[in-house]
Amino acid sequence: MSMAEGKKRAVVLLSGGLDSSTVLGMAVRDGYACTALSFRYGQRHTVELERAATVAAHFGAEHRVIDINIGSFGGSALTDESMVVPTDGTEDGVIPPTYVPGRNTVFIAVGLSLAEAIDAERVFLGINAVDYSGYPDCRPEYLAAYQTLADLATKAGLEGRGAVLTAPLAEMTKAETKAETKADIVREALAVGVPIDVTWSCYQGGEEPCGVCDSCRIRDKALIKAGRPDLATRYAQAQLA
Amino acid sequence: MSMAEGKKRAVVLLSGGLDSSTVLGMAVRDGYACTALSFRYGQRHTVELERAATVAAHFGAEHRVIDINIGSFGGSALTDESMVVPTDGTEDGVIPPTYVPGRNTVFIAVGLSLAEAIDAERVFLGINAVDYSGYPDCRPEYLAAYQTLADLATKAGLEGRGAVLTAPLAEMTKAETKAETKADIVREALAVGVPIDVTWSCYQGGEEPCGVCDSCRIRDKALIKAGRPDLATRYAQAQLA
Repeated sequence: MSMAEGKKRAVVLLSGGLDSSTVLGMAVRDGYACTALSFRYGQRHTVELERAATVAAHFGAEHRVIDINIGSFGGSALTDESMVVPTDGTEDGVIPPTYVPGRNTVFIAVGLSLAEAIDAERVFLGINAVDYSGYPDCRPEYLAAYQTLADLATKAGLEGRGAVLTAPLAEMTKAETKAETKADIVREALAVGVPIDVTWSCYQGGEEPCGVCDSCRIRDKALIKAGRPDLATRYAQAQLA
Repeated sequence: MSMAEGKKRAVVLLSGGLDSSTVLGMAVRDGYACTALSFRYGQRHTVELERAATVAAHFGAEHRVIDINIGSFGGSALTDESMVVPTDGTEDGVIPPTYVPGRNTVFIAVGLSLAEAIDAERVFLGINAVDYSGYPDCRPEYLAAYQTLADLATKAGLEGRGAVLTAPLAEMTKAETKAETKADIVREALAVGVPIDVTWSCYQGGEEPCGVCDSCRIRDKALIKAGRPDLATRYAQAQLA
């Protein structure tokens, strides 16, 4: 699993959460020498960066952390301490307050820049159907438009060897509900050997996951559905008991 | 020229060079309350950031500097001290070694993020025809693709009030040669009151502009053509004498 010469290369955007960690595992399984890329963007939950480092090391991937303080622009509950992280569920078509203006556009741009510099074939993303019911910058038409831009934007793209944006979780699932989609992701995570207990999905910045924010709730439900309640938060386990 | 309430707002990507300083002047002239945005991205010529601050203050614009070290990815003479900055002219269709992988894509993404956070109508860019003969991420079709992405990417875009990417220098000029295009930009700079002597275009990181890199040479030629040889580099003035 080392960065052997001659292996095809990929950049994997790695938040340290369940989804992107699963995608890293899938990319490694598919034979890519991976550089995992994380961002310190002003998020309150920087614990995810330590978890990302651990997950990257687990999969033998190089890990880079880039500082880009778009959180200082304000406007999101993920970066603004004065805003409340929601705990009352997500609603289709409504953009939640945890939306960070332009975050994915910035992160993918940096991923493409790194991909061009290290001659990587793909930029892997954890984007999936659970996200794109709420966040505009997670939908398939958004990704397609980004691919068009990327092919025009880069020296590599002009030369026909530009990086391909790849969101395997968006392609993978045919599940009908968000809960089932997330459970499918958990099953894939288990299949590729993700250290699920290391991954961090919580929107809050505490010592352990809160168990009540929307992200924790969706994840706990999926873990239980996939037959692994032992990996759920302490909060969810107390509810089950 | 203060950030008066009720004024329409704009983000202006400001490198501190002649082109982006001119665009800031045009945006202020057109009645926008401007936030100028500069980047510390690992460039060897960080003097441009000081110049950007001075130009922003001159026009009464707020100034923000964002750290994003894409220069650490390597691959460009602008950020890699071991590479040589070219001094032998630019060639149409050939991407110069001063190209920074994905730089404009990253900068525009951050500009759009800020625009959404502060509810700005436009993101102004200094991109023009002199650049896009060489850099892929300066061409009109690139900008059009970015607008499509931006409208899909953001909460504001979905709500029909997304920021419009605006490159007035690309629209302005009908000149037939690069030298004439750049001279037109100089004339516009003079018309909107850009402190040209403050702006920094040199690719090198010295105390004063080198006068021999491609950027200095194009600028000097334009200043002379526009009847302001007094604003050219010391090197160009010595050549003239």
